[in-house]
Amino acid sequence: MGNCLQSVGCFTCLPKNTNIRPSFPAVCFVWQIAMIILFGVFIRYDAESDAHWPQYKKSHNITSDSENDFYFRYPSFQDVHVMIFVGFGFLMTFLKRYSFGAVGFNFLIAAFGIQWALLMQGWFHSLDYTDGKIKIGVENLINADFCVAGCLIAYGAVLGKVSPVQLLVMTLFGVTLYAVEEFIIISILHAQDAGGSMIIHTFGAYYGLAISWVLYRPNLDQCKRLQGSVYHSDVFAMVGTLFLWMFWPSFNSATVYHGDGQHRAAINTYLSLAASVLTTMAISSLFQKKGKLDMVHIQNATLAGGVAVGTAAEFMLMPYGSLIVGFFCGIISTLGYIYITPFLEKRLKIQDTCGIHNLHAMPGVIGGIVGAISAAAATEHVYSSEGLINTFQFEGPIQNRVPTVQGGYQAAAMCVALVFGIGGGILVGIILKLPIWGDPADDGCFDDEVYWELPEDEESIPPVLEYNNHMTNKHRDMSQSSFSVEQS
Amino acid sequence: MGNCLQSVGCFTCLPKNTNIRPSFPAVCFVWQIAMIILFGVFIRYDAESDAHWPQYKKSHNITSDSENDFYFRYPSFQDVHVMIFVGFGFLMTFLKRYSFGAVGFNFLIAAFGIQWALLMQGWFHSLDYTDGKIKIGVENLINADFCVAGCLIAYGAVLGKVSPVQLLVMTLFGVTLYAVEEFIIISILHAQDAGGSMIIHTFGAYYGLAISWVLYRPNLDQCKRLQGSVYHSDVFAMVGTLFLWMFWPSFNSATVYHGDGQHRAAINTYLSLAASVLTTMAISSLFQKKGKLDMVHIQNATLAGGVAVGTAAEFMLMPYGSLIVGFFCGIISTLGYIYITPFLEKRLKIQDTCGIHNLHAMPGVIGGIVGAISAAAATEHVYSSEGLINTFQFEGPIQNRVPTVQGGYQAAAMCVALVFGIGGGILVGIILKLPIWGDPADDGCFDDEVYWELPEDEESIPPVLEYNNHMTNKHRDMSQSSFSVEQS
Amino acid sequence: MGNCLQSVGCFTCLPKNTNIRPSFPAVCFVWQIAMIILFGVFIRYDAESDAHWPQYKKSHNITSDSENDFYFRYPSFQDVHVMIFVGFGFLMTFLKRYSFGAVGFNFLIAAFGIQWALLMQGWFHSLDYTDGKIKIGVENLINADFCVAGCLIAYGAVLGKVSPVQLLVMTLFGVTLYAVEEFIIISILHAQDAGGSMIIHTFGAYYGLAISWVLYRPNLDQCKRLQGSVYHSDVFAMVGTLFLWMFWPSFNSATVYHGDGQHRAAINTYLSLAASVLTTMAISSLFQKKGKLDMVHIQNATLAGGVAVGTAAEFMLMPYGSLIVGFFCGIISTLGYIYITPFLEKRLKIQDTCGIHNLHAMPGVIGGIVGAISAAAATEHVYSSEGLINTFQFEGPIQNRVPTVQGGYQAAAMCVALVFGIGGGILVGIILKLPIWGDPADDGCFDDEVYWELPEDEESIPPVLEYNNHMTNKHRDMSQSSFSVEQS
Repeated sequence: MGNCLQSVGCFTCLPKNTNIRPSFPAVCFVWQIAMIILFGVFIRYDAESDAHWPQYKKSHNITSDSENDFYFRYPSFQDVHVMIFVGFGFLMTFLKRYSFGAVGFNFLIAAFGIQWALLMQGWFHSLDYTDGKIKIGVENLINADFCVAGCLIAYGAVLGKVSPVQLLVMTLFGVTLYAVEEFIIISILHAQDAGGSMIIHTFGAYYGLAISWVLYRPNLDQCKRLQGSVYHSDVFAMVGTLFLWMFWPSFNSATVYHGDGQHRAAINTYLSLAASVLTTMAISSLFQKKGKLDMVHIQNATLAGGVAVGTAAEFMLMPYGSLIVGFFCGIISTLGYIYITPFLEKRLKIQDTCGIHNLHAMPGVIGGIVGAISAAAATEHVYSSEGLINTFQFEGPIQNRVPTVQGGYQAAAMCVALVFGIGGGILVGIILKLPIWGDPADDGCFDDEVYWELPEDEESIPPVLEYNNHMTNKHRDMSQSSFSVEQS
Repeated sequence: MGNCLQSVGCFTCLPKNTNIRPSFPAVCFVWQIAMIILFGVFIRYDAESDAHWPQYKKSHNITSDSENDFYFRYPSFQDVHVMIFVGFGFLMTFLKRYSFGAVGFNFLIAAFGIQWALLMQGWFHSLDYTDGKIKIGVENLINADFCVAGCLIAYGAVLGKVSPVQLLVMTLFGVTLYAVEEFIIISILHAQDAGGSMIIHTFGAYYGLAISWVLYRPNLDQCKRLQGSVYHSDVFAMVGTLFLWMFWPSFNSATVYHGDGQHRAAINTYLSLAASVLTTMAISSLFQKKGKLDMVHIQNATLAGGVAVGTAAEFMLMPYGSLIVGFFCGIISTLGYIYITPFLEKRLKIQDTCGIHNLHAMPGVIGGIVGAISAAAATEHVYSSEGLINTFQFEGPIQNRVPTVQGGYQAAAMCVALVFGIGGGILVGIILKLPIWGDPADDGCFDDEVYWELPEDEESIPPVLEYNNHMTNKHRDMSQSSFSVEQS
Repeated sequence: MGNCLQSVGCFTCLPKNTNIRPSFPAVCFVWQIAMIILFGVFIRYDAESDAHWPQYKKSHNITSDSENDFYFRYPSFQDVHVMIFVGFGFLMTFLKRYSFGAVGFNFLIAAFGIQWALLMQGWFHSLDYTDGKIKIGVENLINADFCVAGCLIAYGAVLGKVSPVQLLVMTLFGVTLYAVEEFIIISILHAQDAGGSMIIHTFGAYYGLAISWVLYRPNLDQCKRLQGSVYHSDVFAMVGTLFLWMFWPSFNSATVYHGDGQHRAAINTYLSLAASVLTTMAISSLFQKKGKLDMVHIQNATLAGGVAVGTAAEFMLMPYGSLIVGFFCGIISTLGYIYITPFLEKRLKIQDTCGIHNLHAMPGVIGGIVGAISAAAATEHVYSSEGLINTFQFEGPIQNRVPTVQGGYQAAAMCVALVFGIGGGILVGIILKLPIWGDPADDGCFDDEVYWELPEDEESIPPVLEYNNHMTNKHRDMSQSSFSVEQS
């Protein structure tokens, strides 16, 4: 049994300083104060959330409060919000002893990230040049949640292996990179990406994978003790999976233009996800002995259809088109868990705790390709001329763009997402490799003990070796008490 | 101790072939491909989700995108979606060792069922005769979720006793039967059933009970090992209960006509459910020694009010009327768990894992009766003439129908639901009895081990082998193992 | 080891009669029947949920069903509903062995409370003087949920220490007091309190704390056995935390006037909550050895920002103002858990199971003060004259009121909330001290065993005494071990 406690002489298992007391509170305070100052200087309410709305309504001939964007967007916003905090958070609780870190640090990243995203995205997209202020409304809140989603995807790759300070640094840079990448894709290339297959998933996944590659831990596989799940942690993870799955139609439609676009995006996503479930279950059963299903696949690959239909969600993909996308992504994603994750770890030195390569990277790239092809194939017959303009926003600077050209720009957008993800990830990974962030030693990975006060009497984690009597935590405890029983 | 391992010679405990490798992936693939082909041939977007919506708006004098049905229905749709996937899924996680199967197979059934339901219901209700295509929008998605609810109710009766292949077969036929039954009730009888007391609950429950009757396992009671709950599995089940309870007002109002009908359906359901909670708790306490509450009742019977107010939800039932319905259904449903479930099992040979007879069958029938009576008693004074037409859709072919006649048609609808449920269930049960589906032997029932790869180190399930008769619980266990370690 | 079993001779550990069989079912039945009668006499649908809506629409020149209040309010209502039942319920599941009581009694209180609140609030606010009936619509449902929130907050202080009958009594009086207090604050003082910092949180918290003070149990600290959490109960509590956190923007905006007010309230709450998360984490880490985070803080103090921004949510607080409120409340609330809760228990004899003083009382008072100051500082420049009238409802009897005066009324409202909370709590506490309610002895506190049938084979509660080695399960365990103690 190659076991971490036996290799106690090796470098990686030397106890590391994981005390985050000076650094973590300091970073939280300083950054939160910085947010307050920047918000004070830059951020104000937009026309629809400002008390001047009654005048605005009159001056814009709006007859009803139901035309306030709040009523078009808020239900979708709340669904997206649930995905970010409960969906991503609980999806990562599957590890037997990292549920606090999964749901707690997810909470931390998201709460900081949305503030910084409001600023970064605001400067690029919502700056009112008349007074130099960023004007925010419900759509900005959705976009901030989207932006944070990219960082949470990246968290999936390094789950259990980094300190909360590292996560905050990763989020700071992640949001910044995202905002620039998004600006290039949306405002310069004028590509469409309603559900963020490229902007969110491809970027986020490669950002996380590149960081994980730089932070490679060669001896991690000797510390398998905490890398699996237990029965109830898998059930908790299904809470995350299901809230992501159910609300994904809201995610992909949340910022689409009002009316048929938003409606269609929800339908396409609903269908693509349904198809993913069946093919995920099929492949999972096909590749396990006796046809047994693997919870890891069900928790993750069932969502691949939602990722892959992100870019094209608002297009006239047709219901069967959505099913086809979900069909193939369920297969590819599940096969990824079976073959590609081990390959990445062994050959490419990429340790991907949650398998984000299978759930976000590959389906994200497929989503970008589907988007490019379906944009290039758009016709006036299918969309109507007005529909074509609405859907692809062929107006203003790109009013003469045609679908085939749009397809090219969509493909270019994919490249931008990849470059920002991989390049940014390597850069940030190098920063995170500095020995100042309080990250855990190899045998502290995947263990809540390192950063959390744990309840004293604990359940069910079998001690690694009972004769090992320098164990320090709760496991220690339990074996101890059985000792005494015998001695008496 | 009559124990399954002791009766190992009996037929039912002979190991069965539960290998679903050739069959399960094959069924998933073939059916999903069939869905893609059928969707390709038949399904398109409806006017409100098609890119031609701007023209449609103009031609129909619709001034605002907020009139798109998406904005009336989507929030309710999402609530219903949560009920289907999290509500039903987690409600069934109460068994100590069948949470994966509960939430995972629920996911499978629903994901396949909604696709097939879009087709089946589409042919009956949304076929555009000009081009032979089914046109879908958000209301179709809600109806597909409704249809699947019927099959998930049926799953509750056979939970833990069937294979996933059997579940898929059950869903295929269940959705088909549902669509025909719904067509007869809605389009031929012109009965009202907003929340589906008859169409969904009565049908689904008797469908499941009939199947369970045909699949009766006479020696199942000798294998009680896994039939109960553990503490945390009961808490997980409360996640299901509460999401069902909270969103039931959305369920019953989701497809009601816009305006007062939808508003009233939500209020009636909210009230009926509240009353159910109090009477459930009262009866649960009254019939247990020392007045202790039973989690099984709280998890289930508190929902009976929502089932029973389904048909009449949009009627002018009056707030006190809703309370009365909830009052009695909480009582009846809880008494069902105490007296009727054991009776059904012993006398009628119906094994009903989740007690769907108490939660869906009885309250469903009561709901149908309440609907028939309150329809027959409707007056112009209470509804206004326009309100009467709106509520009962006395227009087109039934424009001369009067409330008393409507009451008769409502009663007829109940009979249709019963006939389809019982008849269909027996038929499908016979099919499922064929020895080709990979269903578990009696001692593999209620055990995730059969169809799932389980995490290696596990919590708290008492070992199968009884010859070790001084083991007391897992902790004991662990100290046992440390014993051996030290002794060696 | 100061242990309850050793102090078995003391008064408080004498077995108490916790049999609630005659009383609990009786109270449930009688009160539910009373509700039905009162609803029958008093409650009807309002104009927007009555079948006469088509006429009402015509007579009020409403052109679209999307103007029905249902479509403005229902999504927020459902979010609030989730907070009440899942949010509050699961937040309290953190105790290792009181999850059934947490989520089950929360369910009971809320289901009874909303009915009684519809009546009490109805008499004060929705009485139609033409026919003496209370007319209810979706806004009444939201307000009933709000009212119940006050009682659930109070439940947090006495969690695990009272019987369900006591909880029902507490709810009956709590709702009554709330309705009067609300009437004084809203209709007499014309103070604003959109998210209920004063009406809900300050009142509810002091109501609960006063009750807990009267019901002080001096020997409770000798029974620490069940007062902590276990790993998975903490994860369950995070389900509650996150649903509260995510939907708080809906809570604070749910009853705000349509349009910009509702929009702004959501934005302010979103931001305040985000800031709370960072400062909570910072303080939690700063005050623990090695900088480890404490789950109790993360579960609770992260929500303080939502409480504190309640009153001022709809004001032009500005995004940075919201961040500042959240910033300080995260700090204060976390420090409360570290320093004030132990102080309250030791010095003031207030045992506050969930720490509601830190999460609701202090942030509630801060929220009232923020509201008073920001109301007093309101200017026409910031709000526009029409916006000022909309926001503060300077119309009818208070059409000449100015912001500075409004600030004074806001402060007066805070005093009303405090007086009702403390005074009402002492009164109700005295009633609950009567020895007729079936409350548990000290060593039955925090134990589901007292009021619930528990599953037989149980997880993970360490046996009280290790030398007892023929224990078979926990129940066995406990009786066994108390036996042996006495015998020894």
